[in-house]
Amino acid sequence: MSDQKITITLPDGSSRKYAAGTTGLQIAESISSGLARVALSITVNGDIWDLNRPINKDATISINTWDTEDGQYTFWHSSAHLLAEAVQELYPDAKFGIGPPIENGFYYDIDFGEKQITQENLAQIEKKFLEVARNKSSFERKEISKKDALEFYENRGNEYKVDLIEGLEDGDITFYTQGNFTDLCRGPHIPNSGVVKAIKLTNLAGAYWRGDVNSKQLTRIYGITFPKQKLLEEYLHRIEEAKRRDHRKLGKELGIYMIDSMVGSGLPLWLPNGTVLRRTLESFLRDEQVKRGYKEVITPHIGNLELYKTSGHYPYYQDSQYDPIQVDDEEYMLKPMNCPHHHRIYSSDLRSYRDLPFRLAEFGTVYRYEQSGELSGLSRVRGFTQDDAHIYCTHDQLKDEIKHTIELTQFVFNTFGMPVDIRLSFRDDNDEKYGGNMEYWERAQAEIKEVADEMELDYTIAPGEASFYGPKIDFIIRDAIGRKWQLGTVQVDYVMPERFDLTYVGSDNEKHRPVIIHRAPFGSMERFTSILIEHFAGDFPVWLSPEQVRILPISDDQNEYAQNCAQELRNIGVRVEVDERSEQIGGKIRDAETSKTPYMLIIGAKELEAGTVSVRRHKKGDIGTFKFSDFLSQLNTEIAEKQLPEN
Amino acid sequence: MSDQKITITLPDGSSRKYAAGTTGLQIAESISSGLARVALSITVNGDIWDLNRPINKDATISINTWDTEDGQYTFWHSSAHLLAEAVQELYPDAKFGIGPPIENGFYYDIDFGEKQITQENLAQIEKKFLEVARNKSSFERKEISKKDALEFYENRGNEYKVDLIEGLEDGDITFYTQGNFTDLCRGPHIPNSGVVKAIKLTNLAGAYWRGDVNSKQLTRIYGITFPKQKLLEEYLHRIEEAKRRDHRKLGKELGIYMIDSMVGSGLPLWLPNGTVLRRTLESFLRDEQVKRGYKEVITPHIGNLELYKTSGHYPYYQDSQYDPIQVDDEEYMLKPMNCPHHHRIYSSDLRSYRDLPFRLAEFGTVYRYEQSGELSGLSRVRGFTQDDAHIYCTHDQLKDEIKHTIELTQFVFNTFGMPVDIRLSFRDDNDEKYGGNMEYWERAQAEIKEVADEMELDYTIAPGEASFYGPKIDFIIRDAIGRKWQLGTVQVDYVMPERFDLTYVGSDNEKHRPVIIHRAPFGSMERFTSILIEHFAGDFPVWLSPEQVRILPISDDQNEYAQNCAQELRNIGVRVEVDERSEQIGGKIRDAETSKTPYMLIIGAKELEAGTVSVRRHKKGDIGTFKFSDFLSQLNTEIAEKQLPEN
Repeated sequence: MSDQKITITLPDGSSRKYAAGTTGLQIAESISSGLARVALSITVNGDIWDLNRPINKDATISINTWDTEDGQYTFWHSSAHLLAEAVQELYPDAKFGIGPPIENGFYYDIDFGEKQITQENLAQIEKKFLEVARNKSSFERKEISKKDALEFYENRGNEYKVDLIEGLEDGDITFYTQGNFTDLCRGPHIPNSGVVKAIKLTNLAGAYWRGDVNSKQLTRIYGITFPKQKLLEEYLHRIEEAKRRDHRKLGKELGIYMIDSMVGSGLPLWLPNGTVLRRTLESFLRDEQVKRGYKEVITPHIGNLELYKTSGHYPYYQDSQYDPIQVDDEEYMLKPMNCPHHHRIYSSDLRSYRDLPFRLAEFGTVYRYEQSGELSGLSRVRGFTQDDAHIYCTHDQLKDEIKHTIELTQFVFNTFGMPVDIRLSFRDDNDEKYGGNMEYWERAQAEIKEVADEMELDYTIAPGEASFYGPKIDFIIRDAIGRKWQLGTVQVDYVMPERFDLTYVGSDNEKHRPVIIHRAPFGSMERFTSILIEHFAGDFPVWLSPEQVRILPISDDQNEYAQNCAQELRNIGVRVEVDERSEQIGGKIRDAETSKTPYMLIIGAKELEAGTVSVRRHKKGDIGTFKFSDFLSQLNTEIAEKQLPEN
Repeated sequence: MSDQKITITLPDGSSRKYAAGTTGLQIAESISSGLARVALSITVNGDIWDLNRPINKDATISINTWDTEDGQYTFWHSSAHLLAEAVQELYPDAKFGIGPPIENGFYYDIDFGEKQITQENLAQIEKKFLEVARNKSSFERKEISKKDALEFYENRGNEYKVDLIEGLEDGDITFYTQGNFTDLCRGPHIPNSGVVKAIKLTNLAGAYWRGDVNSKQLTRIYGITFPKQKLLEEYLHRIEEAKRRDHRKLGKELGIYMIDSMVGSGLPLWLPNGTVLRRTLESFLRDEQVKRGYKEVITPHIGNLELYKTSGHYPYYQDSQYDPIQVDDEEYMLKPMNCPHHHRIYSSDLRSYRDLPFRLAEFGTVYRYEQSGELSGLSRVRGFTQDDAHIYCTHDQLKDEIKHTIELTQFVFNTFGMPVDIRLSFRDDNDEKYGGNMEYWERAQAEIKEVADEMELDYTIAPGEASFYGPKIDFIIRDAIGRKWQLGTVQVDYVMPERFDLTYVGSDNEKHRPVIIHRAPFGSMERFTSILIEHFAGDFPVWLSPEQVRILPISDDQNEYAQNCAQELRNIGVRVEVDERSEQIGGKIRDAETSKTPYMLIIGAKELEAGTVSVRRHKKGDIGTFKFSDFLSQLNTEIAEKQLPEN
């Protein structure tokens, strides 16, 4: 080791000098001993390295802990090796294929010979896994010649690793060893197996070697590990919750939507309950937009190809577009976006600076091709309705308009009780895809940042995430079980005003170019609805519920009173049904609970006489007897205020 | 003449015996001398004949008066001959081409040699026309040989008639003569020119002989005639009114819609004011439908071709459909109708007799190809939104459901002050296109007639006008200037339940076929809006007006009060704007009148102090000063009751 110095740049942009050959662990220790204790690996110029690997050149680094994606990648990669170690202990003849980390955990493909692995075996493997992890073995990296590597696996009769090694370059091969287990592996790994404290083997599947159906089928064991037992429990709970909330299951049970192969893949049909839900969401946003000076328009679902040639979306995005349709001597396309139609409305009349900001909104249904394997329920579809709007404004109005769109988006997500993270997606000065006027870019980015600071938003800046036509603001919401979804977006656009030759006459009587803001808080009605269903697990706030109240007369004698109550509720716009079937009240309640109707009004002889209703809240049970008029006014308030369910 | 008898069947189905050789005039006289006086021609087994032509065989006839289409056809055909007679008097060298009756009047193509005909000449011709009409000349029919006919026109140097005669079969040629004018003509004609009392020559145009641009260009004179001067005046007034009300002109002036060649022909874009109008119409109908037990759905704008093959609409209606789009290994089509999508929703779940009637409604946008020459404004388009619904019911429920759909349709048109004529379109037993179960047809037609009688509707029955899949009820509305428009339709369908294999489980636990009712009161939002614009001449009832109130402060000092009033109006859902420009009040009023805003509230210092508003009604002027709260509650009532403008 020389006394040569290298410069290490940390994630906050600061840099420090270290001796060449310093390891990630040493850097972590130099920052804090606490960090060193929880460090799992180090990312060096974009690549993940072992913590004990010497760094010999200047580098930008980050120390990866469990809370980072790169840290989890390392953790799960090492866990795959520990799984193999445990399996080797229990099944000494098992031969190992590949075992990579994946998005949530890891898997290993193993040839167990004649042995069939069962769920019971998995429990034994988990137990053994924790035993070997507790050995606190370190992961030792060793460079090895191709010849020695082949010999190692040939001696063990493992044709899979031999197959892999044959595809590698000599001089580029490494083995990792922890405890009694050695594996062909590029790394990186965690320093020590002791940090892996909890495991769940989640699934068993067959997998052909190299995905080739003519090769041998191996047993793929999926697993996930955590540094704490509590994290595993939370994870398993989240999985269960996600399954329970799956919008494809609830969507069917609650009559929200259907997909029908005869109508077409990825083309949802909104069923009656789903249509009420969607219309309620649309009205909510429409009312807010009217208050904020938006004007609604409706445009056709096809457009002449010239529109998309002008915008530049054809032929460049052809892969995600439907094929053109010939009509007389013109070509038309199912519209993949609403923008060009709105730009043509803007340019259909002379606009003066007095007309700006000019805000056009549309619930516009667009069609984009997705591969059939990508389609899923309401969340990945081929036809969807954007809550689209385009704001045409002057450069001087841009900052205010950005602020208003952020306010609207936040208002929308607050209404659903969804916390929002904000990402400012800016240009990467080194990326050539960003064209246009640099002065405008700089000014817009500065103004976006100013707005974010003035609004005291908690934001991150993501250079290189801007769209090609301008900077944007992305909203990432967190749902009730902590999952993140990127939804609404606000985009500044300097390019389309040029391409569509949009102008306004300024106070100087000259023609000027407006700026455009594209924005869509929900993004798509389909995807947002899928998230709403899962967020609320189908237990929608009353204002959104397709059926808000169900009246359950105990016997036919109360049917008339029930209908009168229903009529009074309908008069104030409540969605109410009366269950007049000749069923026991218990059965009626069960059915209403199943359909997740927020309020059940149970009416017997006593209630009829007293002019009261016995109120039952979905999932809570009986909440008492009320004068009907009192219930009515409380309900009215709950709906008007768009109250969230307590829960 | 023999004493052989023939049987003459009259329009009411009764029949009488006459001597063979009896003429139409004699039949008319035998019915009443009044009828004989106004008779113009007779329709014999579907062909129009002169009144003096002998009838030698059994026949179904109707005597044609001015009030019938066939009567007007005869009247205008004879008028074309009178026009030629008048022209011949004034321009003896004129040579005549063809002169047919058309939808409104007639024309004659004439070769005037070198002479250019002017508007002034037309006035002279009109004067001469009335002179020759007053001669009360009879129209004499004469069969003539081809040789004599050619000789007649060759002597007169008329190459046009010679050209026509050369194309005719000998023995099939007739001349008609009235006064001094003889024409090659198949007939029929009115008995006597004296009934033509009023004429207007409406237009002058060039027309190539036989439509061939290489032939000589003749002068085409368009005209229309009437049996009374008053009818002409009414007609001219209607023409003026129609021009003033043209929705293409008003649609642009009022910001209702636009057509943009870059977006595509026949594809209207709804502008902000049009969108408010359309959304208001949709809400109105949606609310009525919810009250009546309809469930709303939303389905995609494309569908797999299988849907239309199953329904039988592909390939049989291919001419009016857009070409299919290839997606992976399937073909999709822009949907030309919503029915198949709804049928698939019906069949997506098990339906019991308890679920019926099952009423699915959708504001569904469909796309149909029309030739570009046929396109016009909002009334003939390639993409339009139907206020569609399908009612799936049992045979026993059919009668009630038909009654409910008629009630809804009548309610809708009453709301707009449009009188409705009803036509029951039944099957023609001799027409092979009508398939299906005869028993169902008979029963449905009988039930439709029963409903119509029970509701005391004023209806006509049109045999042969049913759709191929069942009988239907057509609604023909009359607009403010007396024009008729066929709008809403109610159709019974026995065929699609078979084709889509729709079933329900009856109380007998067996599977049965439901019947379907298709219905759409507006028909299409686009076409209905075009009719509404012309019906109201853009002066919409307040509940429909895109902008309902405009507040006009006299000076800036009243702006705050104006904004407060506007806010109070907005709080009860009124669409209101404040004109804060620094303009004279006269200019502000003029602009509000131009945009047809129903109410203008003028606010000066006096109103501010007294908390009043000075109210101006569009087209009426000042209607007095009101306490603002009184105005607000009166307006609220006017909107809630959907009051029609007085006018």
